[in-house]
Amino acid sequence: MTLSPLNPALGATFAPPVMEARRWLEGVQFAPERPLINVSQAAPVEPPPLALRQAIATAALDTPAAHLYGPVLGLPDLRAELATQWSTAYGGAIRADQVAITQGCNQAFCAALATLAGAGDAVLLPTPWYFNHKMWLDMAGVEAVPLPTGESLLPDPDRAARLITPATRAIVLVTPNNPGGVEYPAELVRAFYELARSRGLALILDETYRDFDARPGAPHDLFADPDWAETLIHLYSFSKAYRLTGHRVGAIVASVARLAEVEKFLDTVAICPSQLGQIGALWGMRNLAQWVAGERAEILARRAAMTAGFARLDGWKLLGCGAYFAYVTHPFSLPSPEFAKSLVREASLLLLPGTMFMPASDPEGARQLRIAFANIDTPTIGELMRRLAALAP
Amino acid sequence: MTLSPLNPALGATFAPPVMEARRWLEGVQFAPERPLINVSQAAPVEPPPLALRQAIATAALDTPAAHLYGPVLGLPDLRAELATQWSTAYGGAIRADQVAITQGCNQAFCAALATLAGAGDAVLLPTPWYFNHKMWLDMAGVEAVPLPTGESLLPDPDRAARLITPATRAIVLVTPNNPGGVEYPAELVRAFYELARSRGLALILDETYRDFDARPGAPHDLFADPDWAETLIHLYSFSKAYRLTGHRVGAIVASVARLAEVEKFLDTVAICPSQLGQIGALWGMRNLAQWVAGERAEILARRAAMTAGFARLDGWKLLGCGAYFAYVTHPFSLPSPEFAKSLVREASLLLLPGTMFMPASDPEGARQLRIAFANIDTPTIGELMRRLAALAP
Repeated sequence: MTLSPLNPALGATFAPPVMEARRWLEGVQFAPERPLINVSQAAPVEPPPLALRQAIATAALDTPAAHLYGPVLGLPDLRAELATQWSTAYGGAIRADQVAITQGCNQAFCAALATLAGAGDAVLLPTPWYFNHKMWLDMAGVEAVPLPTGESLLPDPDRAARLITPATRAIVLVTPNNPGGVEYPAELVRAFYELARSRGLALILDETYRDFDARPGAPHDLFADPDWAETLIHLYSFSKAYRLTGHRVGAIVASVARLAEVEKFLDTVAICPSQLGQIGALWGMRNLAQWVAGERAEILARRAAMTAGFARLDGWKLLGCGAYFAYVTHPFSLPSPEFAKSLVREASLLLLPGTMFMPASDPEGARQLRIAFANIDTPTIGELMRRLAALAP
Repeated sequence: MTLSPLNPALGATFAPPVMEARRWLEGVQFAPERPLINVSQAAPVEPPPLALRQAIATAALDTPAAHLYGPVLGLPDLRAELATQWSTAYGGAIRADQVAITQGCNQAFCAALATLAGAGDAVLLPTPWYFNHKMWLDMAGVEAVPLPTGESLLPDPDRAARLITPATRAIVLVTPNNPGGVEYPAELVRAFYELARSRGLALILDETYRDFDARPGAPHDLFADPDWAETLIHLYSFSKAYRLTGHRVGAIVASVARLAEVEKFLDTVAICPSQLGQIGALWGMRNLAQWVAGERAEILARRAAMTAGFARLDGWKLLGCGAYFAYVTHPFSLPSPEFAKSLVREASLLLLPGTMFMPASDPEGARQLRIAFANIDTPTIGELMRRLAALAP
């Protein structure tokens, strides 16, 4: 059956990469001595700690409002808690009415972008990019202008400046980066902020993985600027820190005027975020700081195991490693999409090829792979390394 | 602060009506002997039954997957359950892979529409329309072509046929209707289906309020057509039947090919629906048929109270009454936006003016009001009627 009518912008958008990769597993049997290692998605595999599950269960039983509509922009207490904690963490002044809660950070991006750009507009995305950002821009008819980052995986503000045209509405940065794993230096983030401000653009800063940044202190100083809300749109996810991926809770920090536009989008696409998810996120923020610190330490240990492992692996190159991701070049002649697919049967490994994170015209993608290592413990990282080392060149 | 950059399509979209009406309450004190009656939103005010809350709480404690990512198109068991129950209810053949679960029925509409139409396309919406449908079309740059229904509130297929142009992609029907409260006759739905099919358009049928339809049996026979999936896109909400508004769970029934496009949208905007919400919806479908039948009987009793009440009210006219809504014309000279606002202080009543459900150019809106009566019990409906009767003409 040919699909008709079909919005050509949807038809031209690629299929969800994680779901596509999941289909590579169909019909494959994994030997008991070599089970599947799935590093295709940045997704916790364990549930939240018991006390958080209990807090959610108690609310489900005893709080009638947990089942009913809430405000479009989220629970006031959660908005206030995030404003308070972020003001401290970033050394700035963020008010509760500058925070909106969304059904996950992907939706935060879509909502923010919808307020900025429509068909015919353009947005700068460093490559490798996060594929869902690219998909939203495609579906909205907004041109995603690739900003290649080279082997450092760090975008260059001067190169970005040369790509700005009258159609440009925003620059999008993800730090710590997905898929690159790199933590953008504070000065680099500041340089992009100044660039965006001077050219009248918005700077969208997706900090989904901020809780696992290896650096002490604030990762940037943008919120210390009293006028931050004129330029900066910050995005956050509660999914990773508290293992709440199945609840879909994220946040946007932006000006009150922008959130009034965001409210139109969210009222239409969401009505409100999940109440139980918000209750869980608030409980986590108030009670799990110490626990998250332990999670961070564990992920940093896994990162160290990845770095050490790749240092011993001939021919491979670790371009970036941090937060949930390692981003690597492989030494094989097979292009990465075919290579990644072959790894399912050859090594019981599921990971995503670099081609899923950049335009088809960019030859770099064929040499690159993303490994979402935070899902697997240190012994499994050792096993992953043994399997890669055993591959015939 | 002027907002810049601003997507003009967002800027031109109106603010969420329910949130706007809620702001009319700010600073207003209600006398204890005349408390606020809020009939502005179709929202249950009681939580789900205890057994359903317990099912959700148990899953939160004991089911790790309830906190983690699930499939983009929803839990397989929920998709299968809906397919089975709908096949029986509508006398048709619906497969599980023709069902997708969404973060609420608003999102189901946005996802379906995104697959059909982009900037420059057009969609027919009977007026009065559901405002969130209009808002999504505005934000997407799709023209919402109003199809006036007159005093019957029933759209005319011949009039619709004359509004179809080469830009038209779909016709949207809501039955039982929001805001009109009317149940579209099966023959009328069939006529629109034939019109859409003959002109190569999609028919979107939003049946959010199907569980409260007063008629016995199937409300239409479209699923009995073996080729239904080529034309029909059915939308549903679990929010009303099971009082799960705060969990955001809805559904799309459509062709597998269309759901592949829907999957791109949902992967980007949602990643997956709330797992606990889906678990609750599935538990409800499997265990609460009898309870929902009781809910329906109660709402039908409230409907009867509304119908009887308006029959005794001088000057008012009840145009439609069913499911959650009564849609009325009022006898006052004040236009409905100002009249509705005045009712907050004059009668401690919150309801929405007809102008929120049609283009500003349509003079009918100024005479009309929507009353979401399903929120209030029969004694409160009596009190509502007394307050309306007491208003000075």
